[in-house]
Amino acid sequence: MHSIDHYREAFIAYLHSKIKTKEPVNLYEPITYILELGGKRLRPVLTLMAAEVFGTDYRKALDAALAVEVFHNFSLVHDDIMDDAPLRRGKATVHEKWDVNTGILSGDAMLINAYQLFENYQGELFRRLAQLFSKTAIEVCEGQQYDVDFETRDDVTIPEYLKMIEYKTAVLVGAALKMGALIADASATCQEGIYQFGRNLGIAFQLKDDYLDAFGDPDTFGKQVGGDIIENKKTYLYLRAMEMGTDSQRKELEALFSIQPNDPSDKIQSIKEIFETSGGAESTQTAIADYTEKAFEVLGYLEISEDKKAVLKAFGKNLMRRKV
Amino acid sequence: MHSIDHYREAFIAYLHSKIKTKEPVNLYEPITYILELGGKRLRPVLTLMAAEVFGTDYRKALDAALAVEVFHNFSLVHDDIMDDAPLRRGKATVHEKWDVNTGILSGDAMLINAYQLFENYQGELFRRLAQLFSKTAIEVCEGQQYDVDFETRDDVTIPEYLKMIEYKTAVLVGAALKMGALIADASATCQEGIYQFGRNLGIAFQLKDDYLDAFGDPDTFGKQVGGDIIENKKTYLYLRAMEMGTDSQRKELEALFSIQPNDPSDKIQSIKEIFETSGGAESTQTAIADYTEKAFEVLGYLEISEDKKAVLKAFGKNLMRRKV
Repeated sequence: MHSIDHYREAFIAYLHSKIKTKEPVNLYEPITYILELGGKRLRPVLTLMAAEVFGTDYRKALDAALAVEVFHNFSLVHDDIMDDAPLRRGKATVHEKWDVNTGILSGDAMLINAYQLFENYQGELFRRLAQLFSKTAIEVCEGQQYDVDFETRDDVTIPEYLKMIEYKTAVLVGAALKMGALIADASATCQEGIYQFGRNLGIAFQLKDDYLDAFGDPDTFGKQVGGDIIENKKTYLYLRAMEMGTDSQRKELEALFSIQPNDPSDKIQSIKEIFETSGGAESTQTAIADYTEKAFEVLGYLEISEDKKAVLKAFGKNLMRRKV
Repeated sequence: MHSIDHYREAFIAYLHSKIKTKEPVNLYEPITYILELGGKRLRPVLTLMAAEVFGTDYRKALDAALAVEVFHNFSLVHDDIMDDAPLRRGKATVHEKWDVNTGILSGDAMLINAYQLFENYQGELFRRLAQLFSKTAIEVCEGQQYDVDFETRDDVTIPEYLKMIEYKTAVLVGAALKMGALIADASATCQEGIYQFGRNLGIAFQLKDDYLDAFGDPDTFGKQVGGDIIENKKTYLYLRAMEMGTDSQRKELEALFSIQPNDPSDKIQSIKEIFETSGGAESTQTAIADYTEKAFEVLGYLEISEDKKAVLKAFGKNLMRRKV
């Protein structure tokens, strides 16, 4: 097994060799731009790692890894339009640097380009990859739609919220890993197992994101602490606090989530207190631990060496230890 | 061979049976809406017809025909956002009836759904269909980008314009036919031949569209006659008139294409006169006839019966005889 850094570097080198701006420049330049903005490259690294975990040369998985990264960035370009987000990784978003129409059309081309990358795989493997990709991609769209729907609903349940983050975030993590397993021709049990490992880890990852948004260390957390609170975003923390809090805590929380003060610091402070005193914060930490544990349990029945299980577990632990 | 009406009715019945609004409703309702708005269903009919021309039951081609129609409507939904068009087939466009974000996301889901429809084909056929589809879809995106780019350029050449309409419109006509040939397992010559038949017919079709926009009969032409002129759209007619006109005609045309009068009737009249006196109108009619003739020539070397060639030719002639 190679190191995470090795996979990442190999992936980035491959990306640079494959993603070239061609004619029409106004279609392809935004694609090169967003793909070269950086990011942790978590998903493609997982595809490469899984290929090697299941016994094949990771380089065979480079095209699938690139497809996963191109798709992920397609969804960022279109989501950023929908959220009217000015910045992505500290740089201007595509629709800000160019315009909304460019964002729409370049995004469309990226989605098609992702499919084309699977053409580098022969026979039944092409079919399996494309089929898994389509299923995942449509779930990501459905997750995004649920997220949009939830903004204007005040009766979102915890299971609904979990399904939303599963679709919007976790299934692509599972699929990225499963693609590596498909390329390595791993057994059906291993394919399904590594998918569930990724899916559970993806849910834990997103819940951790919700948690850190409120309780992250301002010195190490990449984004503005309290960003979700400022936007009145009903995250897992909010839903759990509403569920577990007393009547008066619930009322206060609802009231605080209906205002948008110029200086949000008091609001953030009050809400964080309710998140803690209601038990919502602790319950969120328990859920993160549970989904992480579920992910690790799945590793138990994978037909791979203990060394390799340890590599996957270390990756998961590292992901969950993050403070950014 | 069945009649065009038979194919169309069979296709519409299949579409109704397959396109259902499911959860999340806000994602799928706009998809059902746009797909049931109607339209001539030309592209899917061509897929069904080609399957039968090359000797297989047209019903085997229903999923591919639906994929072509879903893709075509995906491109309409995203193009209507980009053009800020309020109406499509006399009804509100998706982004007007819902909003831009819904148009973007539902469109994305349609593109993925189109790919999923090919999963109904086994083995190598799935790969051939998906590969042809991706190649065509990316060309449609490139064609749309060239169309956008041309709006702000005053040095577009005739070959550039022809490439734009080929990509934006004609390749999908060719691909729709070729999919029928693939499903019928036609020879490579037949596959390529029917594609070129469709591609040339598609270019002729789009040039006729340019021509009718200026010279169509207001009583039978579906859209507003002179619509392209009002929008200062540099169509084939314009480019040819600029190429063939005298210096003074060129100057007048340029001047007229820089104004947007409240009452455009004088402008339309003057421009139509230059289109005719410069020879641009006649040259456009010649080009339409040439591309139609090229399409029919290709039929010559297809390994199918004369009866079937006659059916394809009749379809093409009917398409070119249209006044709407």
